[in-house]
Amino acid sequence: MAPTFADVQAAALRIAPFVHRTPVMTSRTLDEWLDTRVFLKCEHLQRVGAFKYRGATNAVQALTPEAAARGVAAHSSGNHAAALALAARTRGIAAHIVVPRTASRAKRAAIEAYGARVVLCEPTLAAREATVARVIAETGAVEIHPFDNDHVIAGAGTAALELVGEIPGLDVVVAPVGGGGLLSGTAIAVHGIAPTMRVIGAEPAAADDAARSLERGHIVAPNPPSTIADGLLTGLSPRTFAVLSEHVETIVTVGEDEIVVAMHFVWERTKQLIEPSAAVAVAAVRAAELSGARVGIILSGGNVDLDARV
Amino acid sequence: MAPTFADVQAAALRIAPFVHRTPVMTSRTLDEWLDTRVFLKCEHLQRVGAFKYRGATNAVQALTPEAAARGVAAHSSGNHAAALALAARTRGIAAHIVVPRTASRAKRAAIEAYGARVVLCEPTLAAREATVARVIAETGAVEIHPFDNDHVIAGAGTAALELVGEIPGLDVVVAPVGGGGLLSGTAIAVHGIAPTMRVIGAEPAAADDAARSLERGHIVAPNPPSTIADGLLTGLSPRTFAVLSEHVETIVTVGEDEIVVAMHFVWERTKQLIEPSAAVAVAAVRAAELSGARVGIILSGGNVDLDARV
Repeated sequence: MAPTFADVQAAALRIAPFVHRTPVMTSRTLDEWLDTRVFLKCEHLQRVGAFKYRGATNAVQALTPEAAARGVAAHSSGNHAAALALAARTRGIAAHIVVPRTASRAKRAAIEAYGARVVLCEPTLAAREATVARVIAETGAVEIHPFDNDHVIAGAGTAALELVGEIPGLDVVVAPVGGGGLLSGTAIAVHGIAPTMRVIGAEPAAADDAARSLERGHIVAPNPPSTIADGLLTGLSPRTFAVLSEHVETIVTVGEDEIVVAMHFVWERTKQLIEPSAAVAVAAVRAAELSGARVGIILSGGNVDLDARV
Repeated sequence: MAPTFADVQAAALRIAPFVHRTPVMTSRTLDEWLDTRVFLKCEHLQRVGAFKYRGATNAVQALTPEAAARGVAAHSSGNHAAALALAARTRGIAAHIVVPRTASRAKRAAIEAYGARVVLCEPTLAAREATVARVIAETGAVEIHPFDNDHVIAGAGTAALELVGEIPGLDVVVAPVGGGGLLSGTAIAVHGIAPTMRVIGAEPAAADDAARSLERGHIVAPNPPSTIADGLLTGLSPRTFAVLSEHVETIVTVGEDEIVVAMHFVWERTKQLIEPSAAVAVAAVRAAELSGARVGIILSGGNVDLDARV
């Protein structure tokens, strides 16, 4: 029902030829601002500009030759779409990406530039799921879910595996949470290496369903979308909820202003163009007051829409 | 009249305890776009976000204790101001920075945050020079010119020294040119190591006085300011003109649109927030059609005014 630490280790071996081992960056200005010693795992420097490439690559490379020959499919207009498209192209197989017709032309073009077939649908969850089902019925493609998939979660965990293996003596690792794939993989990786290390999630207050789910002990539905961190709108699945319930100390929620301030601080002081979802984790470290701790932060990605003013 | 390769080597030793040895970054997407193999020397990751910290540190650290005790002075509202302020604070001496009263409050605040005294003046070259002269008369401070200074030029050259020492087999090194301090230091460093390596300057077409100076064989006056690359408005000095005349193959000029396109390409594809002056060098590599060459680019800095829409 959920991947194990061994799955994360296997993923690391499987994807090593295809993914960047991203650098870990430090910044004394950021340390002062956060009153901690921070180690930034730079997944914005990953291929396609996001950690999503790790999970998509792990899922695609794990397919049997027979399954792979039928191609892969997903509904997404974000980083998972680009990641799956490139992972499929890298293996030389087809990718069918279902995209709501309201997605920007730039996003569609980016997915097509990675060699995927874009299938448009109405912008509702029901239409997305029905369209993916139709594509799968027509092509036999294997659906690769953006987070509710053991290979995707294990692949996502390889970023934390590298971070914790490289930086000695971390006290806490912080990652943003949307559907919970990154945070689940991170928690499994961290506790596989260091069972007592703290794992904290970071979530926009305007999309705090994961925080409320952990508090109440059951999955609550996502809020209506109203956060700049558009990668974090999705709700948990039973799979990710179970992992987070077991491994995560708390989920810190942050306001939209805090997210923007943290994003601009990182842009200005580190010159790294991180996306709002990554800034959520930085804002959470500031809000959590982890004074003096050695904190690893998974900077999830860097795909900012520079045409939108933020 | 101009620094030598030995001066650059001495600068490297002198400033090593104080400056970052910045990373050299590569990007296959950028390689494809430029049809070259590029190696980006990341001075936007230097302290104060610009190569200027190298020259300011070299000049400040080279002062005798007696001279240092009287402090330093300069007129600048850009990267040199911040660099000199921090270099002075690091040595524990005073810095007096003459800033035109039209400079943004953000710039003044940044200089003061580094511990310098800001002295306002009218926004003309005559007023700036007169004000610096008055400050020096009052305080005995040593003027550290932003580029017409051997220590500043030698310090600037240490970025190229690191780049060429680290990356084997470069064919060309490209740096932007304003007053010519960075390009002079770069050329001296490159030809000290590899006398036949090509050194190319990069300049906005809207501020092409250095290109025209080299063509005509004498210094021509700067154009009226009309480029986004506001770090490159200054004209050459006899010192930098002499170095560039001896060492630089050509200066490639690029249009404003090319600068913005290159800057946005680097932002989007490498997630590195470089400033317009640094993008001038990238745009020049694209314009120069150095097909297949191994090209080192000095990314001069990353201090973008994110409040201005670019």
